[in-house]
Amino acid sequence: MPLSEYRYQRRVQFADTDLAGVVHFSWIVKYMEEAEHALWRGAGLTISPADGVVSYPRVALSVDFKAPLHFEEEFEVHVRIASMSRRAITYAHTIRRGETVIATGTMTAACVRKVPPPMKSTEIPPEVLDRLQPYREP
Amino acid sequence: MPLSEYRYQRRVQFADTDLAGVVHFSWIVKYMEEAEHALWRGAGLTISPADGVVSYPRVALSVDFKAPLHFEEEFEVHVRIASMSRRAITYAHTIRRGETVIATGTMTAACVRKVPPPMKSTEIPPEVLDRLQPYREP
Amino acid sequence: MPLSEYRYQRRVQFADTDLAGVVHFSWIVKYMEEAEHALWRGAGLTISPADGVVSYPRVALSVDFKAPLHFEEEFEVHVRIASMSRRAITYAHTIRRGETVIATGTMTAACVRKVPPPMKSTEIPPEVLDRLQPYREP
Amino acid sequence: MPLSEYRYQRRVQFADTDLAGVVHFSWIVKYMEEAEHALWRGAGLTISPADGVVSYPRVALSVDFKAPLHFEEEFEVHVRIASMSRRAITYAHTIRRGETVIATGTMTAACVRKVPPPMKSTEIPPEVLDRLQPYREP
Repeated sequence: MPLSEYRYQRRVQFADTDLAGVVHFSWIVKYMEEAEHALWRGAGLTISPADGVVSYPRVALSVDFKAPLHFEEEFEVHVRIASMSRRAITYAHTIRRGETVIATGTMTAACVRKVPPPMKSTEIPPEVLDRLQPYREP
Repeated sequence: MPLSEYRYQRRVQFADTDLAGVVHFSWIVKYMEEAEHALWRGAGLTISPADGVVSYPRVALSVDFKAPLHFEEEFEVHVRIASMSRRAITYAHTIRRGETVIATGTMTAACVRKVPPPMKSTEIPPEVLDRLQPYREP
Repeated sequence: MPLSEYRYQRRVQFADTDLAGVVHFSWIVKYMEEAEHALWRGAGLTISPADGVVSYPRVALSVDFKAPLHFEEEFEVHVRIASMSRRAITYAHTIRRGETVIATGTMTAACVRKVPPPMKSTEIPPEVLDRLQPYREP
Repeated sequence: MPLSEYRYQRRVQFADTDLAGVVHFSWIVKYMEEAEHALWRGAGLTISPADGVVSYPRVALSVDFKAPLHFEEEFEVHVRIASMSRRAITYAHTIRRGETVIATGTMTAACVRKVPPPMKSTEIPPEVLDRLQPYREP
């Protein structure tokens, strides 16, 4: 695995499918988020620290759905950091089942301070920026 | 509507279904919870007050699934309070599509204090008990 | 309501929220789909006819998340058809809680023939195109 | 691992949590189903064969929730077959995080013929009964 991306492995669960017999598109975007959080764990971080002060809500999302996924299929989400500023991170994702591209997408998360309400944009802690650096695309 | 139950109306959404072409059973239990929260609103309450101190996690659940529900079908959840103590409430639910019973079940929620962690059993506020009284089965 | 859009009303359910205390972003995209299907019903159609031959999977999705939604809040999804070809429909959505814009997005669904597998692009039935016409933006 | 149970490992995902900061109870029942399907795979089976003729809907469910689960925690679902007849299988589940029991439950699935509609109870194929036998509790 090149240092500049994280590969997350997953199997389709029954409850991820819909009456069309394929994975519901809302699950594709959840798989993207699961991969992001796995990348953070890979970097020695958690996206939801116990102090509960800072949070990383999504501010933008864009996905192209290329092929259907089915029950019990195994797939990979390749995720890398496409860009990173002091207050936001944009990830680029490719979901693959073997050689088949299932979906490609980007997702931007911003850093917010939750406490006290309301949520307010804040700076990403420097240690987080440092640890995520290896997953940034060259 | 008799005072001793609440009737919650709902339509099946596409994402509630699975590859078998029917509503996934995890949605049946979510419909039961949605009806409980609607009963609370009917009683002039919210199950999640803004102060965030008290919470009502489920401690027991039992369901019999009788017939399938399909996309876009309209149904009702009839919910009443089967029993109520100082620390817990047991609801009894019947989910119907017209004359057809889709599922019957019971669900028990306990009152807990969330703050400071960890969660600890606590007494249901007297005002809540009073307001829920009309939905108690005779 | 102008003929060129459909307004779908909804309340946030408990299970739509996440540990950050707000609606999880995957629910925002599900709300967009719920509104699309309500628009079809408004047009006298169902997006999933009983014969099960044709289906409308999503091929593209783009969302900007502007403000958080919370438990029990009521909101509206305004949806209109931004463009429509023989094989695909692009919807434009705005999710509002009162005057506050929660999210804006677009979603493209293609018409596919499911039977026999695999899914294959096909033409949208002319009657469907006719009935959706009033929701097309001017 | 004793032959008479299957152990399924899982991590809590962000979208599994709710505003109370813990896993939503509907996810506990989904974890139970995920473990059942993993047990079938362990037995060399799939619960949803490609021919799509037979299906295994849930007919009963009972759960006691003992302790909360949190984001990113790893847990195990221990599942075994408590009883098995010609037409139905009852599983017994224990969900554990380390030594802590999170929930215990039972779930009964029946065998139905989906095609032609409506769903009708049918006999479980003998090969399926044979392969599941090792997971039956003594």
